[in-house]
Amino acid sequence: MSFFAVIMAGGVGKRFWPQSRRVTPKQLLPIAGDESMLRMTVDRLKNITDPGQILIITNSDQEEAIRLECPELPEDNILIEPEGKNTAPAIGLAAIIIQHRDPDAIMGVFPADHYIKDVKSFADYMQQGIKIADEMKGLVTFGVVPTRPATGYGYIQFHSRTNPAEPIFAVKAFAEKPDVKTAQLFLDSGDFLWNSGMFVWRVDSIIQSFQEFLPEIWDSLDNIRRAIGKSVWNSVLTVEWATLRSISIDYGIMEKAQNVFVVRVDFSWNDVGSWDAVHEMREKDSNRNVSKGEVIFQDSENNLVFADGKTVALVGIDDLVVIDTKDALLIIPRGQTERVKELVDSFEKQKRDSLL
Amino acid sequence: MSFFAVIMAGGVGKRFWPQSRRVTPKQLLPIAGDESMLRMTVDRLKNITDPGQILIITNSDQEEAIRLECPELPEDNILIEPEGKNTAPAIGLAAIIIQHRDPDAIMGVFPADHYIKDVKSFADYMQQGIKIADEMKGLVTFGVVPTRPATGYGYIQFHSRTNPAEPIFAVKAFAEKPDVKTAQLFLDSGDFLWNSGMFVWRVDSIIQSFQEFLPEIWDSLDNIRRAIGKSVWNSVLTVEWATLRSISIDYGIMEKAQNVFVVRVDFSWNDVGSWDAVHEMREKDSNRNVSKGEVIFQDSENNLVFADGKTVALVGIDDLVVIDTKDALLIIPRGQTERVKELVDSFEKQKRDSLL
Repeated sequence: MSFFAVIMAGGVGKRFWPQSRRVTPKQLLPIAGDESMLRMTVDRLKNITDPGQILIITNSDQEEAIRLECPELPEDNILIEPEGKNTAPAIGLAAIIIQHRDPDAIMGVFPADHYIKDVKSFADYMQQGIKIADEMKGLVTFGVVPTRPATGYGYIQFHSRTNPAEPIFAVKAFAEKPDVKTAQLFLDSGDFLWNSGMFVWRVDSIIQSFQEFLPEIWDSLDNIRRAIGKSVWNSVLTVEWATLRSISIDYGIMEKAQNVFVVRVDFSWNDVGSWDAVHEMREKDSNRNVSKGEVIFQDSENNLVFADGKTVALVGIDDLVVIDTKDALLIIPRGQTERVKELVDSFEKQKRDSLL
Repeated sequence: MSFFAVIMAGGVGKRFWPQSRRVTPKQLLPIAGDESMLRMTVDRLKNITDPGQILIITNSDQEEAIRLECPELPEDNILIEPEGKNTAPAIGLAAIIIQHRDPDAIMGVFPADHYIKDVKSFADYMQQGIKIADEMKGLVTFGVVPTRPATGYGYIQFHSRTNPAEPIFAVKAFAEKPDVKTAQLFLDSGDFLWNSGMFVWRVDSIIQSFQEFLPEIWDSLDNIRRAIGKSVWNSVLTVEWATLRSISIDYGIMEKAQNVFVVRVDFSWNDVGSWDAVHEMREKDSNRNVSKGEVIFQDSENNLVFADGKTVALVGIDDLVVIDTKDALLIIPRGQTERVKELVDSFEKQKRDSLL
């Protein structure tokens, strides 16, 4: 039995404009530390498996930058989706590739752009997930112990402990992102966890789930599978991919399957969904300012400022996010940074391609 | 009788950092419009006199930029102070130069960095001042009808009308910048005007005033005067200048002299003392934003944003001043822009010369 890790790196992360662009999406930015999110994800996974068994699924816009960022991964381990079809098709594609290499493999799925501080703890929890996936032939999720009534995450409700010695539970239900009141109920209940978007399963288990719950997607995947290693690979992939519907793995499989487990993980985790999350996560000065580059704070508190090669001076400013790049400058209050997406959407509508 | 205009262009205007620097001071910036403050001042004066009779007094840091900005002025009309000694010595230096060219001249003094919207009205008031200076041999000031209880300006209290047909009054008193309460009293009284810092007098009148009220400065000026056109000019100027005390023309002469008049001017005038003044002065969009360059305002009101070659996006931001330049970015709330001076003073203390 060998473990293959699949990193999902297809997103753009519009909320990180002006740093995130089509060719430099969120996962390629050093938002959470001095290295890119993707680089940190690969390094985290190298504690569990060999670089030869780490795959990245992305799109052609990002392919080149990703290959440069992860030179230790074999060329064949960078999978290119012809177009984005949400998580289920992407995971299915990775599953048939892995099955082709090792039909007995265990496979893990990991977002490229989440932050996990404690790498050792992460590896320990993953080993527990791998064990249960192999023993129970189940689909294993990872649920983070919530620390606040977050409305930006989906939740997993757990059921009963499978083994008193391990933090592993049967899953009772998945819940979409709640409103504040519901989030507080979830937090108070004690049996809801944040859905981290990480999964572990045997490759034959997930393929069986595709066959059961997404049979029409499986038909396409099966056609693609038969083209692996052949000259028709690209054309088959492109043709079949165009027919697939967009659907998430949560909605398409996880919410329907019976043999779903959750590993209750108790570590500092953040999906780094916005500039606000970056302010929360990063080290602060004595006035709770977070900065990168040459920034002067005078009588200013609780700001996030990323300078890029110039001196930035804030005088008498509180709770502001300032992101300066070579060709664009964003200024937005803390607490409102979700709205960056609206801004980027408006650029798309106006076809302001130089800003995308 | 001929009229000579002297433009006082020695200041830096620290409050306009990061645009204002030692070599690009306030008067050389296009703060009030598309042209520099100095360029606008010269153009305003060309309606009253010939470019050959417009002089600029400045320092060696700014000399080159000023010559480039005002190519129509004769080389000899740019006077270089060896060091800043406040307004009295600078005006005295200009007076002896002008007297040397025309002992019967009338001389006007004008700050390089004030904004006057109505150029025609300005010229009319100046003609009235020139007339009274010539006829009464007095020292003529120009007092702007106040529109609010400003604490940033000095005030002139007037006495009695000299001629019912003209807006010219004898001066009763000069008042320093008042506190808010006093400013309100001044405004309510009806006999206080804003001191515009503009003066007109016969050159022999002001020289006589130097002899009477600032005799030790006059001794030096007299030595300098005797070196005009001679090879020793530079050395005499430098040596004498070093001995002069710093003193303003208001404190040194105007407040002591008896024959002082004020022309009551009723036009839109602004000393453009800070970025707040720029926001007040300039044309606004429907959300009262003022901007230069490519600026995107989303749900943002009452801001001043100067972009410089990049896209600046404000989302959900009110009452902010954002000044972006090639090497520095300033962010400060509207209403607090006086504090930019503190910031620049701190750069001086820290010897951060690249920012000065």
